[in-house]
Amino acid sequence: MTQPGTFHGVGLGPGDPDLLTVQAVKLVESAGLLTYFAKAGRRGNARAIVDKWVPKGKPELPLWYPMTTESHFGSDVYVDTLREFYERSVGAIADVLDMGKDVVLVCEGDPMFYGSFMHLHARLKDRYPTKITPGVTGMAGCWAAAGLAMTWGDDQLSVLPGTLDEDDLVERLKATDAAVIMKLGSNFPKVRKAIERAGLTARATYVERGTMAGEIVLPLAERAEDSAPYFSLILIPGEGRRP
Amino acid sequence: MTQPGTFHGVGLGPGDPDLLTVQAVKLVESAGLLTYFAKAGRRGNARAIVDKWVPKGKPELPLWYPMTTESHFGSDVYVDTLREFYERSVGAIADVLDMGKDVVLVCEGDPMFYGSFMHLHARLKDRYPTKITPGVTGMAGCWAAAGLAMTWGDDQLSVLPGTLDEDDLVERLKATDAAVIMKLGSNFPKVRKAIERAGLTARATYVERGTMAGEIVLPLAERAEDSAPYFSLILIPGEGRRP
Repeated sequence: MTQPGTFHGVGLGPGDPDLLTVQAVKLVESAGLLTYFAKAGRRGNARAIVDKWVPKGKPELPLWYPMTTESHFGSDVYVDTLREFYERSVGAIADVLDMGKDVVLVCEGDPMFYGSFMHLHARLKDRYPTKITPGVTGMAGCWAAAGLAMTWGDDQLSVLPGTLDEDDLVERLKATDAAVIMKLGSNFPKVRKAIERAGLTARATYVERGTMAGEIVLPLAERAEDSAPYFSLILIPGEGRRP
Repeated sequence: MTQPGTFHGVGLGPGDPDLLTVQAVKLVESAGLLTYFAKAGRRGNARAIVDKWVPKGKPELPLWYPMTTESHFGSDVYVDTLREFYERSVGAIADVLDMGKDVVLVCEGDPMFYGSFMHLHARLKDRYPTKITPGVTGMAGCWAAAGLAMTWGDDQLSVLPGTLDEDDLVERLKATDAAVIMKLGSNFPKVRKAIERAGLTARATYVERGTMAGEIVLPLAERAEDSAPYFSLILIPGEGRRP
């Protein structure tokens, strides 16, 4: 029987192709199959980041998210549709692993930090050898781009989704030393208000497309728009011990 | 007048030399001066990580931490000694920048996430061009090594120092979805007790030297010793939405 291949989750970092790790580049080069998530019919951002490192003729498989715009996030239809999509993706990947080939799934940022990869990893890790190559997170790319020193001495850092309700956000912002607020989108006005109520607007920086083309770094107070794209977040650095 | 050089803070990642980014490798190769923090008289861990990427004959300057074992952490003597050390380091680096050479300070993990680099960056950023190259954090190296998917869906993540008092730790652990507890050392028994009180021991994993030689990954409950070395942390993954 053929020895099964290894399933790799490989972080690509925040967007600049030179922020791939050396190990990520090696795995992209040696992959039996290169795979990645993308919107249906698109090449997607992960594939764009990795482009300059993909050898000509490398077998590839895009994993196209199902269209779910019509169904609400937490709804049964949404959950079922996604579940079927993940199961189907797992099937396709398992077929290649069974042929003894390594499958490399490349992901924006770090694969184990809010990564869709995790849904496939959870289904495959007990059936096949799996290996994780960590990546530079999107938030680290953003604080580097902004030149912000995030955590000092014994600072605590809270990573908060903008989906939390306003009062909850205010309370958590008041209780932490440093914060990263992700998943802004249409939550942006609410998040902005929560930061204002916590008295932190003067310390907050808005970053869009950190390390990528079209990068924007602004004091939060100077950001006029009332929504924010997918690749954006707000950074509030800590103020801990600094001799 | 000579154009001043650029001061670079470059993250080296969690320990495996192949977890440097491509950009970090390029900067180490092109640096006018390579510099790094280390214990007095030692080569130190950052220099060890980067070793295979340093060209022969590259000018180097170790920045040796002053001996502070005798003085307590928060004491005036400690703070003054460190401040003098940072000022002295800044002076040496500025001299080289003034000669028009780029200075590359390499740091374990990410330079803006609990990095000593930040103390020099704060002093130099308004005087010289500075650039940050983000790195894979130590915690991402550890959760990759442990194969732990940390944050799902709308999970919040709290990064907590083990220096917090026990009641505070318990409260914060109860209020978050996912947690990383760093700075264990002699705080380890207290941290263990706080996790127990928060009812999270079964979900907690202890990781020592993640991605490095001598790596240890253990369920927290199976870790017998009552202290933990510098390169160790505890991971409690979130349990958020997973179709």
